Amino acid sequence: MASDEPPETLAGVGEFAVIDRLVANRVQPDAVALGPGDDSAVVLARDGATVVSTDMLVEGSHFRLDWSTPHDVGRKAIAQNAADIEAMGATATAFVVAFGARGDTPVAQAVELADGLWYEAHLLGAGIVGGDLVTAPQWVISVTALGDLGGREAIRLDGARVGDTVAVIGHLGWSAAGYALWLNEVQSFESLRRRHLVPEPPYGQGRIAADAGATSMTDVSDGLMADIGHIARASGVGVDLSWDALSADLDPLTEAGTAVAVDPRTWLLGGGEDHALVATFGAEPPTGWRAIGRVLDGPARVLIDGEQWHGDSGWQSF
Amino acid sequence: MASDEPPETLAGVGEFAVIDRLVANRVQPDAVALGPGDDSAVVLARDGATVVSTDMLVEGSHFRLDWSTPHDVGRKAIAQNAADIEAMGATATAFVVAFGARGDTPVAQAVELADGLWYEAHLLGAGIVGGDLVTAPQWVISVTALGDLGGREAIRLDGARVGDTVAVIGHLGWSAAGYALWLNEVQSFESLRRRHLVPEPPYGQGRIAADAGATSMTDVSDGLMADIGHIARASGVGVDLSWDALSADLDPLTEAGTAVAVDPRTWLLGGGEDHALVATFGAEPPTGWRAIGRVLDGPARVLIDGEQWHGDSGWQSF
Repeated sequence: MASDEPPETLAGVGEFAVIDRLVANRVQPDAVALGPGDDSAVVLARDGATVVSTDMLVEGSHFRLDWSTPHDVGRKAIAQNAADIEAMGATATAFVVAFGARGDTPVAQAVELADGLWYEAHLLGAGIVGGDLVTAPQWVISVTALGDLGGREAIRLDGARVGDTVAVIGHLGWSAAGYALWLNEVQSFESLRRRHLVPEPPYGQGRIAADAGATSMTDVSDGLMADIGHIARASGVGVDLSWDALSADLDPLTEAGTAVAVDPRTWLLGGGEDHALVATFGAEPPTGWRAIGRVLDGPARVLIDGEQWHGDSGWQSF
Repeated sequence: MASDEPPETLAGVGEFAVIDRLVANRVQPDAVALGPGDDSAVVLARDGATVVSTDMLVEGSHFRLDWSTPHDVGRKAIAQNAADIEAMGATATAFVVAFGARGDTPVAQAVELADGLWYEAHLLGAGIVGGDLVTAPQWVISVTALGDLGGREAIRLDGARVGDTVAVIGHLGWSAAGYALWLNEVQSFESLRRRHLVPEPPYGQGRIAADAGATSMTDVSDGLMADIGHIARASGVGVDLSWDALSADLDPLTEAGTAVAVDPRTWLLGGGEDHALVATFGAEPPTGWRAIGRVLDGPARVLIDGEQWHGDSGWQSF
């Protein structure tokens, strides 16, 4: 095709032919008994318990196509759903993806999105097993993740016990810092800016935490304080974090904070979307996890060095 | 609250408080080991095989809020996903629902949507186990359905064999007829108009067909010819339908066709969204199923009384 010809569009090629291109030559993992192409897929979890979670990403609210490539958007959509599976102590096995876009969207962009979805799924050893392709005034990507507990009990929000150690693994505040850098058109701090577009959840650590006896766990999607707050409320306990213990997490944010005149502690404590894992352990946390605080007797609240934090502490959709 | 006060909105009440209202007092079925409120839910399928399918509904493309109530939209969103589970010979057990809407959407509308989702889920003995609530310029509802095969093999598209009987159960063309009536502002034919807003898939018949030895099955979502075409292509067979056998399905559409000057055969053969089930059987179809044709040796095509149909034969998203 000559380069001055208009690109093929979703409307021009048609739903079924586009879907054929999106699913061609994808390799499914063993957990997928039946992949795309039928009315439904069939996904295996030998212990009979399937973990399931869903997230929707809307252009303008959750990503901007002038910042993210379609490949980035696909990776992010899978990553944030996979983190919810990890947070139960499970392993993601399969995803279904519904994609809405305008009819004049180039097919090449949909293919790039699918490539991003598959790239991230491969990092997990999982597959994309089905989906839907519809017309919508802007991009909407809705992902549902399925996971396998491998015979383990799910690690819930409500199991934290007084005296447990609170520990994290993964980035804290990087996505929020990156967002501020993008907004302020700061070109440096590439790794922070990149993490805003594509988070890097600590894949595999959910299962490791479960095997190490995690009593509660969640992923940091709304912000560290907000998400530990969910554990505190569900478990009926207080949590006291330590600035000393968090200093290693603050270091990579400090220069960027200076660059955009923001207190980087706001990102550390309030920034979501990095999908770090935070868990409570009655024993020593596993290798690589950083102890950042301790579980106290109630009331349900999250303190830092025994004091309340009055900065911005989390994300709400509306 | 006085009636002249503005209604509570999603943005005013906030994501977490709205979700609390949407999930309050819902009763989960036995298949749900862990319901909403944690990072993920846990859904059981004792044989270790979970059937999964997803569909996205976008305001303007898939429903209009001047025709449908939010309750109708919720019912339709569940119904069309449940039909994909039925079409595998499985039973729907659980759904996750992502909902995007503007911040100024009244909370009462979101509650009504959730009530509709739950109403339809209850018809199936299933539960809504999780979701997401995000801001979007128009309503977007993305549902993923999980289902349980109960130890059966999934009934796929590719198992039709020469000599099989093709049979259907459920309405054919009612939704398409209803759509034409709504567009033409015809106030009569209430049952057809109603089926366009809320389809009535033949719940439970997927499992019955599987137990009766169905060799292939699908739900009529794109149109009878298109969906039987999917079976024909996947199975590498031809299908010959019979006008005589379809006459009982044509009867309820005839008067409405006259009212809007449309050949009702177009609705019967090309109308999707009723989510009837169509299957092929080597033996007698189960009670209530209507034999409408026969499976022939290839090529893969769908004929009627041995001839090609040249009318409109199915829905594509773009």
